[in-house]
Amino acid sequence: MAKAGSNTRKDNFASSKRHVTSYDVARHAGVSQSAVSRCFKPGASVSKKMRARVMDAVKELGYTPNAIARGLITRRSNMVAVFVSNLNFYPEVVSELSKRFTERGVHVLLFTLDHESDVSRTLEQVWQYQVDGVIAAANLSSDEIATFEERNLPLVFYNRSYEDVRVSSVSCDQVEGERALINRLAGSGVHQSYAIVSGPSDSIVSMQRTRGALECLTECGFSDVTQINGDYSYQSGCRAVQEMIEQRGSLPDAIICANDVMAFGAMDELRYRLDCDVPGDVSVVGFDGVRAASWSSFDLATVVQPVESMAEAAVSMLLDRVDNPDLPPEKRLFSGVLREGSSIRC
Amino acid sequence: MAKAGSNTRKDNFASSKRHVTSYDVARHAGVSQSAVSRCFKPGASVSKKMRARVMDAVKELGYTPNAIARGLITRRSNMVAVFVSNLNFYPEVVSELSKRFTERGVHVLLFTLDHESDVSRTLEQVWQYQVDGVIAAANLSSDEIATFEERNLPLVFYNRSYEDVRVSSVSCDQVEGERALINRLAGSGVHQSYAIVSGPSDSIVSMQRTRGALECLTECGFSDVTQINGDYSYQSGCRAVQEMIEQRGSLPDAIICANDVMAFGAMDELRYRLDCDVPGDVSVVGFDGVRAASWSSFDLATVVQPVESMAEAAVSMLLDRVDNPDLPPEKRLFSGVLREGSSIRC
Repeated sequence: MAKAGSNTRKDNFASSKRHVTSYDVARHAGVSQSAVSRCFKPGASVSKKMRARVMDAVKELGYTPNAIARGLITRRSNMVAVFVSNLNFYPEVVSELSKRFTERGVHVLLFTLDHESDVSRTLEQVWQYQVDGVIAAANLSSDEIATFEERNLPLVFYNRSYEDVRVSSVSCDQVEGERALINRLAGSGVHQSYAIVSGPSDSIVSMQRTRGALECLTECGFSDVTQINGDYSYQSGCRAVQEMIEQRGSLPDAIICANDVMAFGAMDELRYRLDCDVPGDVSVVGFDGVRAASWSSFDLATVVQPVESMAEAAVSMLLDRVDNPDLPPEKRLFSGVLREGSSIRC
Repeated sequence: MAKAGSNTRKDNFASSKRHVTSYDVARHAGVSQSAVSRCFKPGASVSKKMRARVMDAVKELGYTPNAIARGLITRRSNMVAVFVSNLNFYPEVVSELSKRFTERGVHVLLFTLDHESDVSRTLEQVWQYQVDGVIAAANLSSDEIATFEERNLPLVFYNRSYEDVRVSSVSCDQVEGERALINRLAGSGVHQSYAIVSGPSDSIVSMQRTRGALECLTECGFSDVTQINGDYSYQSGCRAVQEMIEQRGSLPDAIICANDVMAFGAMDELRYRLDCDVPGDVSVVGFDGVRAASWSSFDLATVVQPVESMAEAAVSMLLDRVDNPDLPPEKRLFSGVLREGSSIRC
């Protein structure tokens, strides 16, 4: 391949590439054009021999298929956008989604949002990139959701479901999960006083978990429950323990945290600052089932979200709707799995 | 906006959009075309009043700038690819990179690789998407690196540097960091026997850390060092402790883990399975400075990578080279910060 002087090298190179088409490759390899295109379509059936023949021609001619230009013609970019509200709390989810899309030859444009409410600013960018669909692990207003329908752009919510809104979602059953935890705590008969540590105020997931816990506690006859606002961080779990002592004058028998990371903070605060025994003096439960929940330091009682099943469901629901935009919205609700841990007294 | 029957709705909608250009918007709003384009360029200067005027016209006409089509004309897609070898170990890095690119109006195509060596399969996809550049937190062969130079596609390695190869990189000084840890351990005078737990065999970072630790231990007069192979996971940290007992017949005075997560596994194994005191019986050190290192359960002595500075450097180095492909490669090496923790005896 000819290379010119350094100033014009890029342009020359780019234009020399541009002249090589899939037709040239097919002719050079002595195969059909559709055979060439099958070699560049992930998952398409093509024999090993055929692939080797085409790839030799590709290398010799310096051919690169332009997925972006193809996208303009086919109106499929083979890109999807994934919104996550804070990657630090959902690394497994992003990893699982990304792996599954990649297996299907679809690429992930990642948008991380500092706050869930940042999403509206991101949407303008998303329209411009002509993605085939969006998975949102962040909140959208009903106006924003309506824009997706207007644009006929498939949208699947990950772990937040909107009641009474026509939109697809995959969620863990937050309320059912909290009920399982509360029934476990209340059923033991040793917990008479409770405190709840909720997550950020703009998180629907946290709202559902807190509501589920409160409802179930009321049903079990515990109506005087201390409520502390956290923000899902370890530090806010530590602070919540101090705040509940200030509010109540003493520690409760059990602390219900809206996620695992705050539960780790609460446990560490109890054990290392207040010299309390967990679970001897106070039981602590979380929600999510992150990896550290099973570490011996914590061995946290929590609800494990079935992340793999949920990610698989979200990916296939989205791609089904890319292929067939007339499919009706669907809400899928997965049960979490109660993880028994030594962070609660029996 | 006219909507046709459900079958043709998408096509009609898409084509009605396509007819609206930035010229139409400019005329409708009574402003210049360049004012319209400034409104869609992140970071561009435009008054609040002007933006409101343009956005009203945009909404009324149903205009969407097509970033993909623009990319074909300008030869800038405003997309970069980020390769990470395993997201679960680097969530902060992806989050920091993504945030910084987004602030500059650049979007991230995320490729997660199960193993660092998967990268070659990913490259073919990357060429097709016409990204402006790549940040690789994964290993590439020198042939693969050469392909980037041939294509004149900017490439910056994150946290792996290749000696004697003309390629840009941002790294934490792994060797210097390990030396600081070893000098801290050896300087106390209480550690006479050592074991090292290394990371996955295809990780350059792990190799550099292990080599740095071994060299420094030899210089300090400790040549009989037990070496165990881990894979960066918590479980492999637990197993490593059992393996070193089998190999040595007893525990060493200090365990040097190639990352923090294995150190957590080793600490938990020592404390909860073997009923040992950390640091009373055994000191443990890690590397990375992940969030959990500062949690009271661990309070791990480690080297904290300056992730924010490193991410900022990687993003600006890459975008500088997108703007000016003739800039020479540059290697930037950041010192880590020794985190004193109660996981080592003094």
